[in-house]
Amino acid sequence: MIYLDNAASTQIHEDVLNSMLPYLKEQYGNASSIHRYGRIAHKAIEKARKQIASLINADPSEILITSGGTESNNTVLRGITMGNACNHVITSSIEHDAILEPCKQLEKNGLTVDYLPVDKFGTVDPLELKNHLSDNTCLVSIMFGNNEVGTIQKISEIAKICNEKKIPFHSDAIQAVGKVPIDVKELGIDLLSISSHKLHGPKGIGALYIKNGIKIDPVILGGGQEHGLRSGTENVANIVGFGKACEIAKNNLDENMLYVKNIRDLLVDKILHEIPKVTLNGHPISRLPNNAHFTFLGVNGEDLIIKLDEYGIAASTGSACSVNTQRASHVLQAMGFSHEQITGSLRLTVGIFNNEKEIEQTVTSLKKIVEELRSFSPFKEKYSFTSKV
Amino acid sequence: MIYLDNAASTQIHEDVLNSMLPYLKEQYGNASSIHRYGRIAHKAIEKARKQIASLINADPSEILITSGGTESNNTVLRGITMGNACNHVITSSIEHDAILEPCKQLEKNGLTVDYLPVDKFGTVDPLELKNHLSDNTCLVSIMFGNNEVGTIQKISEIAKICNEKKIPFHSDAIQAVGKVPIDVKELGIDLLSISSHKLHGPKGIGALYIKNGIKIDPVILGGGQEHGLRSGTENVANIVGFGKACEIAKNNLDENMLYVKNIRDLLVDKILHEIPKVTLNGHPISRLPNNAHFTFLGVNGEDLIIKLDEYGIAASTGSACSVNTQRASHVLQAMGFSHEQITGSLRLTVGIFNNEKEIEQTVTSLKKIVEELRSFSPFKEKYSFTSKV
Repeated sequence: MIYLDNAASTQIHEDVLNSMLPYLKEQYGNASSIHRYGRIAHKAIEKARKQIASLINADPSEILITSGGTESNNTVLRGITMGNACNHVITSSIEHDAILEPCKQLEKNGLTVDYLPVDKFGTVDPLELKNHLSDNTCLVSIMFGNNEVGTIQKISEIAKICNEKKIPFHSDAIQAVGKVPIDVKELGIDLLSISSHKLHGPKGIGALYIKNGIKIDPVILGGGQEHGLRSGTENVANIVGFGKACEIAKNNLDENMLYVKNIRDLLVDKILHEIPKVTLNGHPISRLPNNAHFTFLGVNGEDLIIKLDEYGIAASTGSACSVNTQRASHVLQAMGFSHEQITGSLRLTVGIFNNEKEIEQTVTSLKKIVEELRSFSPFKEKYSFTSKV
Repeated sequence: MIYLDNAASTQIHEDVLNSMLPYLKEQYGNASSIHRYGRIAHKAIEKARKQIASLINADPSEILITSGGTESNNTVLRGITMGNACNHVITSSIEHDAILEPCKQLEKNGLTVDYLPVDKFGTVDPLELKNHLSDNTCLVSIMFGNNEVGTIQKISEIAKICNEKKIPFHSDAIQAVGKVPIDVKELGIDLLSISSHKLHGPKGIGALYIKNGIKIDPVILGGGQEHGLRSGTENVANIVGFGKACEIAKNNLDENMLYVKNIRDLLVDKILHEIPKVTLNGHPISRLPNNAHFTFLGVNGEDLIIKLDEYGIAASTGSACSVNTQRASHVLQAMGFSHEQITGSLRLTVGIFNNEKEIEQTVTSLKKIVEELRSFSPFKEKYSFTSKV
């Protein structure tokens, strides 16, 4: 199989798995226990916390470990607004459902949430944000890089606007951490969500960067782990693996970014040149290095994925998570795409374990598949597909 | 090391780890993805769901997978009361903090929570529950087996009372599942919390049994996984391991229960006979088969643990989680224990990987340690320790 769905999940790095194994075998202590087993587990977690912090230039004390990116996002939205007198939150219309759904919950609870529009590239205008800020705004949450089309937001500008007004600024950076350099101090970010399994770590673990001084209420209550901010017995093995994944990502960031970008660019170039009536979606330059998102006119994206799967290629139409809700992409809608453009969309996300040969094979297969699907397409005449192929 | 802290966490069973490894290696797909990787992950989760359900005689559709027991408990308390018109919850005074802390949160939100008292054995009187029920009661949450002293509650009687009034009955069975037979249908339980790492599965994963027909709101919102009840990319490997652990627990339940009980009984007998001024706490009969909880008068439990650790024995004073909050055991307080009795407490929890030889070694060491600590004890005269040793 050729795996081109690295935005959905990634292969665990071999060194990550090896780092986890002792904690899945002999080191099974509860990190809160006083005895040796407990102390070893506790120490391992604190080492991982340093590794996670280091990747985004945070202090280890600013890293809250969660069960994943979704929990991190939920924690921000509920935890910042809960005990707060505020009643206004600003986010964007292209956030992941792990932001949008908690926002809807806040609205049910009486808060006002503004969903900023984006341009055709999926970019939020920082001026638009500025215009929406009010004295009641207690949180701004704008994602770092979009999970569907890969567009990277003007994070530094957005952070500056929020910092000036002293409004906490959160960024869902689940798709970006480990892929592009992120320095929370330099960027002026107050809260940042991270997911382990998007950066070659295990699933079921994530983190929330909370800048020292930012007050947040816990969502999951109990034994008081994570300084009372996230109760529950620590998932030691996964935390250790997550830490290791962050360390590896940090040590190879520039190299991997370039490698992945080159492969992705090759993929994009070949598809745009070899297949007619196809467009690249998202921002042409300011985009995640691993992301390629296309619209193949006259083709149904789901048919494309199923056919690609038959050819041994793993791809997706957009967010893997959206499969559960079966809705048309709200991201593409916000970017002003027509129903037809949305239907024909395909996301290919490459990773460090892909190579050029796989890309060539993919394009060869994709060309055949698109041709075949278009030969049955009801839009055959409209786009005169046959003219160029 | 001799590990006698199986209530804090357990060693992952070798077959459990082996079942997880494919999902930590080549099967890294996101379970929501449409392609082969996704379908394989999805199928693995559904197999695990069946294994989990089978252990408690539930239907797989009644199993909600969570990040652990604490999240399961939080989900019940928030999820049942959230959209509900009710304003009254009943629980007990000896619940785990993962119940008590969310209850305090409910009280802050204006709900009334009754904390039922217990007798000196740690048992809730079902009549007491009956007397507290009102038309406004929307949830009763009474734990199955206590995590500190091991007392098993009259679950069947309690469930009957709740069923008659059609009030959802939840039981935190984190310490009991896989240790004693639990049939949710036969017992009449509506909601039940389970933790994987207490039954030789991995950490960071758990489940909530929700009887078909019981309405519950989600706590973590997003991509809509788990039928919208728990969003976030599924932790496939840990879910698979959890499922396998449940299968193993089910297949060996009677045998393991007897094995563990015999070892525990040997431990209790030897300690009570060979060490003076020691009492067994909790219920003498209705208790978890793996739990032994003592008070060694004139000794500080924490000193005991540290000394035991030096001797290569892992033990605890009570809940591992309570280490974070540094409070005196609320369980022993509710049972009417004096400060002195609480201070001198030690929990030893055995498991399937312990053996008789370890028990004998433990008692020999414990005898020496208690003697040594008592020789410095300020209560030396009061209890005339030397007279019997």
